[in-house]
Amino acid sequence: MVLATDRLRPVDVASVIEGVLAGDRRAVARAISMVEDGAPDLEALSAGIYARTGRASTIGLTGAPGVGKSTLATELVRAEREAGGTVAVLAIDPTSPYTGGALLGDRVRMQEHATDPGVFIRSMATRGHLGGMSLAAPEAVRVLDAAGYGEVVVETVGVGQAEVEVAAATDTAVVVLSPGAGDAVQMAKAGILEIADVFVVNKDDKDGAGDVVRELRQMLHLGAAGPWDPPIVRTSAIRHEGVAELREAIADHRSYVETSGALERKRRARLLQEVESLAAARFRVKAAAALTSDGALADGVVARRIDPYRAAAMLTDETAAAT
Amino acid sequence: MVLATDRLRPVDVASVIEGVLAGDRRAVARAISMVEDGAPDLEALSAGIYARTGRASTIGLTGAPGVGKSTLATELVRAEREAGGTVAVLAIDPTSPYTGGALLGDRVRMQEHATDPGVFIRSMATRGHLGGMSLAAPEAVRVLDAAGYGEVVVETVGVGQAEVEVAAATDTAVVVLSPGAGDAVQMAKAGILEIADVFVVNKDDKDGAGDVVRELRQMLHLGAAGPWDPPIVRTSAIRHEGVAELREAIADHRSYVETSGALERKRRARLLQEVESLAAARFRVKAAAALTSDGALADGVVARRIDPYRAAAMLTDETAAAT
Repeated sequence: MVLATDRLRPVDVASVIEGVLAGDRRAVARAISMVEDGAPDLEALSAGIYARTGRASTIGLTGAPGVGKSTLATELVRAEREAGGTVAVLAIDPTSPYTGGALLGDRVRMQEHATDPGVFIRSMATRGHLGGMSLAAPEAVRVLDAAGYGEVVVETVGVGQAEVEVAAATDTAVVVLSPGAGDAVQMAKAGILEIADVFVVNKDDKDGAGDVVRELRQMLHLGAAGPWDPPIVRTSAIRHEGVAELREAIADHRSYVETSGALERKRRARLLQEVESLAAARFRVKAAAALTSDGALADGVVARRIDPYRAAAMLTDETAAAT
Repeated sequence: MVLATDRLRPVDVASVIEGVLAGDRRAVARAISMVEDGAPDLEALSAGIYARTGRASTIGLTGAPGVGKSTLATELVRAEREAGGTVAVLAIDPTSPYTGGALLGDRVRMQEHATDPGVFIRSMATRGHLGGMSLAAPEAVRVLDAAGYGEVVVETVGVGQAEVEVAAATDTAVVVLSPGAGDAVQMAKAGILEIADVFVVNKDDKDGAGDVVRELRQMLHLGAAGPWDPPIVRTSAIRHEGVAELREAIADHRSYVETSGALERKRRARLLQEVESLAAARFRVKAAAALTSDGALADGVVARRIDPYRAAAMLTDETAAAT
């Protein structure tokens, strides 16, 4: 397990790329730090590893704080290792966008895997990435993919919009609930239930787990049925119960999306969306520069002479005259 | 109180603008529906009202579900009416981005103000607005501002990223906590504490309110002190207690930002940020169209020949060749 990020040493992007492709843990850690920081060499890194991505199975693990996602991730790691696979966990920390400092430092977990070379665990914030977590996370997943981990588990700390987007952008999105930690109605409001390929009701050892299952079933009946009916798996991660069933549900979903062509379509759609978002983020930087250099436009907006929509249209048309 | 949105009738944007500027409630309701829907006439609406905006004082009210924001908003409305002012409440509903349907229909509240022409209450989702809630909400606030409401209270349902952004984009952001509904540590993680100009610990009648105040004070001591030290006001909205103190704290903050020039700076910065975001959202649409028309580029990305960063750069540089 590599937690050090080694930010102080100068980064030679070619050697980082080489290291990532060779599965070198230090290089992988450094590459993910580059993604977090939005390092200038990020484009070179992305270009250098991209051809070697698309092989890993990715699993999203999302749900309200306190439902036991970390424990569940630990169980999934153990089971995958027992089955002979390699696995990486990317834990998404919702760093405050205002301070830029991560309050969460509690990733000193999964100690049992600390010395296992087939396991890589890393928590991730965004410090400088242009597009925030929604764009940083997929790039970090590609780093782990290129490094050869067969399975990448993306675990979110909470259920913020960016976190839900990140979880939804995996091959199989697992939504975790538990008794006493947010209810299905709240999650429905936040749009979380709808991204689920598999539901887990964790803490099955606790009172109220059956109620959560019932409430969830009711919520699901309200929604429109799709071609895939997300199963509900009951687990007690802390007692190591239900993990085999969860893995089976994830494997079933994977078979379904592979056979139906849904996986290919979903991956294509999310790659193109990522390109659009990256392009928009780049353009935003251009627009900000144009606003700074064109004081008359900025002053016109502030003086309420030019409304924001008109100013935006001026920027888009001016700077994108070639379209 | 106008809740009907009258979506069925064709909208004549000129008459909507005229109605908004005259303070006509039906026109205001219709204009906000146009903002929600991202109606084609939105740019014309924005252009038509913009010169008449910038007069209202805006107050953000954010905090975890269950802290009593709605009750507090009701109290603020009553007090503002007693003081002779007019007030609008915009309640931000975190509609699921996946279904497009609002699960929340529970806005049958503030019944006491239902027949008061000096009060306008409206809940708001985003159905089609290009930039989501972060861009739709400021435009809706401008509609209320142009209609002549002296005070606009923006109440968020939860503490999602977009909701926090919306609350932060007001003149005075009030962050509400209460015993038993999310703790200060969780809120710090979500970046909510840092946007606060005023803190409220509501439900002061309940056990544990003092603990919340203490925990909050500790959290605030961890952060860097700014030029404005956000006061902590204890209220019991349900018992009508502490509301005068809250209004005083809001007025103090307003005096401070007006005198120091911070209000002007904040408003300028957020208008320019809005322009940048709108420009980026417009550009994203262009980029998506370019990806659709250029099948080779899209296929190259999907086949892992062209990495997303390079594809984004190609789109930005190609379509923005004039910069």
